Amino acid sequence: PLRPLPLGSTKLTGGFWLNRQRINRETTIPAAAQRLEEVGTLRNFRRAADEQTGGFAGKLFADTDVYKWLEAVAWEQAREPSTDLADRQSTTSALVAAAQDPDGYLNTYTRLALDGQRYGDLEKGHELYCAGHLLQAAVAQVRGTGDRTLLDVACRFADHLCKTFGPGRLEGIDGHPLIEMALVELYRETGTAAYLELASYFVEARGRGLLTPPGHHGPAYFQDHLPVRDVRTIAGHAVRALYLASGATDVAVETGDAELLDALQATWSTMVESQTYLTGGVGARWYGEAFGDPFELPPDAAYCETCAAIASVQWSWRLLLATGEGKYADLIERTLYNAVISGVSLDGDRFFYVNTLKVRNNAFADDQRSAVGGRQPWFGTACCPPNVMRTLSSLDQLIATSDDDGVQVQLYAPAAVRVGPIGFEVETEYPWHGTVRVRITSTPDTPWTLGLRIPAWAETHRLTVNGFEGPLRRVWAVGDEVVLELPVAARRTTPDERIDSVRGCIAIERGPLVYCFEQQDADVVLDSAAVVAGELIEHEQPNLLGGVTTVDVPTRNGTLTAIPYYAWANREVGPMTVWIREDA
Amino acid sequence: PLRPLPLGSTKLTGGFWLNRQRINRETTIPAAAQRLEEVGTLRNFRRAADEQTGGFAGKLFADTDVYKWLEAVAWEQAREPSTDLADRQSTTSALVAAAQDPDGYLNTYTRLALDGQRYGDLEKGHELYCAGHLLQAAVAQVRGTGDRTLLDVACRFADHLCKTFGPGRLEGIDGHPLIEMALVELYRETGTAAYLELASYFVEARGRGLLTPPGHHGPAYFQDHLPVRDVRTIAGHAVRALYLASGATDVAVETGDAELLDALQATWSTMVESQTYLTGGVGARWYGEAFGDPFELPPDAAYCETCAAIASVQWSWRLLLATGEGKYADLIERTLYNAVISGVSLDGDRFFYVNTLKVRNNAFADDQRSAVGGRQPWFGTACCPPNVMRTLSSLDQLIATSDDDGVQVQLYAPAAVRVGPIGFEVETEYPWHGTVRVRITSTPDTPWTLGLRIPAWAETHRLTVNGFEGPLRRVWAVGDEVVLELPVAARRTTPDERIDSVRGCIAIERGPLVYCFEQQDADVVLDSAAVVAGELIEHEQPNLLGGVTTVDVPTRNGTLTAIPYYAWANREVGPMTVWIREDA
Repeated sequence: PLRPLPLGSTKLTGGFWLNRQRINRETTIPAAAQRLEEVGTLRNFRRAADEQTGGFAGKLFADTDVYKWLEAVAWEQAREPSTDLADRQSTTSALVAAAQDPDGYLNTYTRLALDGQRYGDLEKGHELYCAGHLLQAAVAQVRGTGDRTLLDVACRFADHLCKTFGPGRLEGIDGHPLIEMALVELYRETGTAAYLELASYFVEARGRGLLTPPGHHGPAYFQDHLPVRDVRTIAGHAVRALYLASGATDVAVETGDAELLDALQATWSTMVESQTYLTGGVGARWYGEAFGDPFELPPDAAYCETCAAIASVQWSWRLLLATGEGKYADLIERTLYNAVISGVSLDGDRFFYVNTLKVRNNAFADDQRSAVGGRQPWFGTACCPPNVMRTLSSLDQLIATSDDDGVQVQLYAPAAVRVGPIGFEVETEYPWHGTVRVRITSTPDTPWTLGLRIPAWAETHRLTVNGFEGPLRRVWAVGDEVVLELPVAARRTTPDERIDSVRGCIAIERGPLVYCFEQQDADVVLDSAAVVAGELIEHEQPNLLGGVTTVDVPTRNGTLTAIPYYAWANREVGPMTVWIREDA
Repeated sequence: PLRPLPLGSTKLTGGFWLNRQRINRETTIPAAAQRLEEVGTLRNFRRAADEQTGGFAGKLFADTDVYKWLEAVAWEQAREPSTDLADRQSTTSALVAAAQDPDGYLNTYTRLALDGQRYGDLEKGHELYCAGHLLQAAVAQVRGTGDRTLLDVACRFADHLCKTFGPGRLEGIDGHPLIEMALVELYRETGTAAYLELASYFVEARGRGLLTPPGHHGPAYFQDHLPVRDVRTIAGHAVRALYLASGATDVAVETGDAELLDALQATWSTMVESQTYLTGGVGARWYGEAFGDPFELPPDAAYCETCAAIASVQWSWRLLLATGEGKYADLIERTLYNAVISGVSLDGDRFFYVNTLKVRNNAFADDQRSAVGGRQPWFGTACCPPNVMRTLSSLDQLIATSDDDGVQVQLYAPAAVRVGPIGFEVETEYPWHGTVRVRITSTPDTPWTLGLRIPAWAETHRLTVNGFEGPLRRVWAVGDEVVLELPVAARRTTPDERIDSVRGCIAIERGPLVYCFEQQDADVVLDSAAVVAGELIEHEQPNLLGGVTTVDVPTRNGTLTAIPYYAWANREVGPMTVWIREDA
């Protein structure tokens, strides 16, 4: 198994992701603070802190938008402290603390709208889901800034939960998982075993009929159809399913439960083989925001919630650490570059909830979440925007891992890494160019291994140490340079024949990026367009869409231009497709 | 324009549809009476009649299940009176009458659950939807039996509606259309112009923002996004959209509104060209039970609610009468034989809510409506079963139409038709065999035209009068025999290339029937199966599935057997597909 690097061990020093982090910090996070004020989410906390009742604004899980925003701010403070962010953070944290009940419980909806009545609707109430996001924000804050304000709030809340839930106490689980992984993380931070025990209880109690399914849905909607360890095909609401899988993985790792970990790995494999879009997006169904059956992956009807992509990254990260297997990092890379950052505009101020792979000609938006209407400044259910924020703010933490044998680079980006006596710098123009240079900046005088992930998409690669081929386990010297060359040239991808809706189509990929075609770049109606065999011509376009490489694909009478999928809908919003028919 | 024949003008005398009517009468309708008792729907009326409050059972529109059942019984009584049915009918009608408020309003949910508070939630309350079904049942009852009990109830209710709704009164429309066509039919029955005026108001008031969209949905969910006359692409909840279109067509016809009728015809054409499944099923999306964008027609994710297919038949029938164009009867035929009767088991006691075109390997049902779980005896929302009942009970009314020039046979079935001085008998083994014989049994001594629809699926046909080719407008003599021969041999159908999910596939059709493959008839996994070019071999199988012709389709190493789609899921329920890949 691998270990995450201590916070601060990795600094992004430039390139694709640092640019995204900069926009996230300068535009997205401040704009979100304004939205949270405008739509009343922060006012809910103020009213709760003042012991008022009534006047709750938003959806009953709105508290989590503040917690995720606080988490993002905490990671930003770890990356680069600012007094402005520190002020916002301490003001907001104090507000959260002030809204806590004397016994540790905290939920502004319950306080304002339900007269403090707790746990009356575990199916839909989201109380433990809200608690989970608070715990996660608290852990981020203490790690990122040392500020224990939220951690104290979180521990009091977690202590309350330990007293309330479990065998012989209130035997129940939350309709929306999340608390599981939050409790394990709080356990990791504090060492309090009761938090792990409660997380374990919540995982084990699932799939035993404690919840009554809502509306037309069956129990799989919230993963109560089977005990987690009996699941082999992930089902139901995608975000719930993936948060639960993440928490269950945490529990399996911390309790040494190999059977549970095996089940989770098998489920992950089925998901990747048959329930994951090319972009890494997951959740084929709008109805129930749910996973589809295996190979049910329609591009136009895809839901691919931004939060689900983020949850997929969280789960894969946990399995990567648990097993050390590169396939998990492969999915993280695919998902981050495509399904996650498609969820936010290049300017950083507009968001997709749903990340479709195709918008048809004459498509019609009758829902704020529909991509047909373009990215939105905020949502009635605003889970996705702050989830993107915390993901980008903490992205440097996913760059590398370590184990007893050395350090592994999992994602390629310009970065400086320092773990104990080991230090190195990464230089690359990834994902646009495939050359990655790693220069050793400090090293012990004993041998260690520099792990460099070879992405699954790379059919070939070339690796040299100081210009020669050679092993990556060695006694390194400061100044040693490893060069990895990955073949990022544009390629055609053919789908599994069992996916009905893309049969006879190809997609363009380039390195880790999935490409798409937008109608505005095409002379023909995309819905009827078809490409033919022939050379893919790349164009570096520094002034297009923040700087991208486009790919021209031949058709019978001209070419069609593909752009990176993440960058679509940043000019006009119109028809778009990832998959395109190929004329035989 | 065409006219419907007076009730009783057409008697089915045997064959496919009479058999379905027999099962409907002997099994489905009595079983439904029992369900309506078991689930408390009838008890709601009893409690309301007794002026009780509370204790409402079921969904807030449950009253309509009783009304649709009463409508079915009324048509059954017209076909073949029985004292048993007459007893059930008069008991139930009396109960409905007793539940009516003194001012004409009637709704057991409002009475029992809302303390009589009316029209507080026009978006979701379904009060006028319930009223509409009552009006339709009342018209059926007076036409079918002469019994005016329900008609009096309906007129009192309609009078109340006329006093309540309209310009300067309560300016509102119902979230679930239906009242429009019901009011027009009541106007046709009674001649009361106010009913037509109110229907016209409800149609015109739509698309002007009178309704607040529910949940995440936009106004198209209940067709409030555009005035009806401005719509060109049908959108939103399929049943609502089609009931509204039917009512708007009625209004257009009765008020002579050519502009409105043109808009409806254009919308119908777009629907048929790009939003209708091969089965005639409509509604591509589970989410919102809605129409998809043009060419968004995934077979596995198809919703194709049974009620939507029925509503499509109702709309096409109205347009057929309004225009005389055979394409409307073509869609009626396609929809009845495939998307409607797939909704009820061959035994008549189990129902599909959703009529999918594909069930995948390892598909999972997390919803009572999912076809993966097989047909169900009843539903929490039980709209579909009684809708099938009234459709089958009134199916003989769709066989033929008339105009000043003669009589038109729209659907081929063994039947005796008598309209004024014109009479003829139809003999056929349709849909299994393509020969249709029409023998004149009475005729005036002036010329008239016998119209025989040539289905769009028939690439050729042969037509003789007394053995010779000749015109169908003539002075007929008793004993004249017209023989129409239609080529029902199995054929391969290729989809529009813009439908992603069936690209590279073919379907088997035979006459008006769409075929499908069930896993239990295949040696290979259907999801990966492919057929090749070659002869389609037909087998008449009188002992299979109530008597069907199966079609063997060649593959590289053997054959795959197709059965009529309507008959699927009557043995084991497992993987099924209408479309199958074709190896080039």
